[in-house]
Amino acid sequence: MLNEPQRCRLCVVLVRTRNPLNIGAAARAMSNFGFDQLRVVEPYELAFREARSAVGAREVLKTSQQYENVRDTVEDCQLVVGTSAIGNRLLQQPIRTLQAGAKFIRNHLRSDRVAILFGSEKTGLSNEDLSHCHWLLHIPTLPGHLSMNLGQAVAVTLYELMRQNSPAKSKPNLNLATAGDLERLTQLLLEAATVSGFLSAQSLHSGEQKLRRLMRRLHPQAEDGEVLLGILRQILWKLHPDRG
Amino acid sequence: MLNEPQRCRLCVVLVRTRNPLNIGAAARAMSNFGFDQLRVVEPYELAFREARSAVGAREVLKTSQQYENVRDTVEDCQLVVGTSAIGNRLLQQPIRTLQAGAKFIRNHLRSDRVAILFGSEKTGLSNEDLSHCHWLLHIPTLPGHLSMNLGQAVAVTLYELMRQNSPAKSKPNLNLATAGDLERLTQLLLEAATVSGFLSAQSLHSGEQKLRRLMRRLHPQAEDGEVLLGILRQILWKLHPDRG
Repeated sequence: MLNEPQRCRLCVVLVRTRNPLNIGAAARAMSNFGFDQLRVVEPYELAFREARSAVGAREVLKTSQQYENVRDTVEDCQLVVGTSAIGNRLLQQPIRTLQAGAKFIRNHLRSDRVAILFGSEKTGLSNEDLSHCHWLLHIPTLPGHLSMNLGQAVAVTLYELMRQNSPAKSKPNLNLATAGDLERLTQLLLEAATVSGFLSAQSLHSGEQKLRRLMRRLHPQAEDGEVLLGILRQILWKLHPDRG
Repeated sequence: MLNEPQRCRLCVVLVRTRNPLNIGAAARAMSNFGFDQLRVVEPYELAFREARSAVGAREVLKTSQQYENVRDTVEDCQLVVGTSAIGNRLLQQPIRTLQAGAKFIRNHLRSDRVAILFGSEKTGLSNEDLSHCHWLLHIPTLPGHLSMNLGQAVAVTLYELMRQNSPAKSKPNLNLATAGDLERLTQLLLEAATVSGFLSAQSLHSGEQKLRRLMRRLHPQAEDGEVLLGILRQILWKLHPDRG
């Protein structure tokens, strides 16, 4: 169970949703289970407008915010979790079942802002989207079957978060770096890897996603992130002596 | 968790459903979680036909059976459970939360046929419908909020039935770096921090301990550790051009 302040720290993020009914259904489930932070990334414009203006549109939908990319959407979050049907793609991040993952998320919500990303109806989350995630959440469905409907996946996920559990063993209160810090670290590490010759120009794009995922797996505490940022800045300053 | 014969003993019963999309959504959730007995009571005819003939209609839907009343629908079942949003009506039957109720249902499914009834979108189950039920199942949502969407209620209910009980302490299978790797990383990071000027000679000793602790907190996976080692080596090579 989560109390109200904890529920307010959870952002449901819908990425490139096409069907207004699904946006509406996600908002309804949020309202049912007491969550109110809805963020929408690159929605199919018409769908979003339709969903927002629908008769009886939830308050959740009216106060939802629209973003242009995943990076900006999750910038203020300390934990970013992607949802995945685990299809053909080889996933390069740790995967947790909903049941196990919900425990982690609940622990984080005591102090951290958490984003859960849901991908589009057809293609789910892209590798670029996933590279912003610390780990992936999987609702255990029957193998070989179609992936879940978006609105139902949101409902099941929020249900599990709100489910009564035997009190979790309290974890030390970690003050984790936000997604914004992680992205700054990623960019500096990328620059250091490039300038030093570790990455070539050709491998820059795939290298960026790799390092982004690596940084999410490391997930430093805020203070450690500061130290690493400081070291990287100093290294880059040395590697670019011409910068002055 | 339920095995296949047990899942086959569960009938999902939709009573007077009006929206074909909801019938389709219920069928999809059933297919996701491995249930295949769908029974439909007095559906709005057009809705049922539409849902059945929809492109990509699930097998579940095609083999579903239509009934004229609840009594006939549940005739072969040993346990009949109604779902309820618990509105204004005074309910005259025992109520169990989904979590507690699912346990009972799972126990019955070892040998009994069980029906779970879901009412119409607008009015839910009537008192007549409820009178056929042994007890009622309630999905705990926030009081004062709208009831759940039908397809989402079916999905959440089936998810709970299929949920692992004793939480598998499933940790993602992490192949963590060894202490030896961590120490190599620490030393290289320390060198980079010193050569770049981030650490002064005076703070070297305390700096070493700080970075060692930091690296243990990060605790990268083995593969990520390799990448970081590679980047650090390359950076150091660049920072010491005289090394050759």
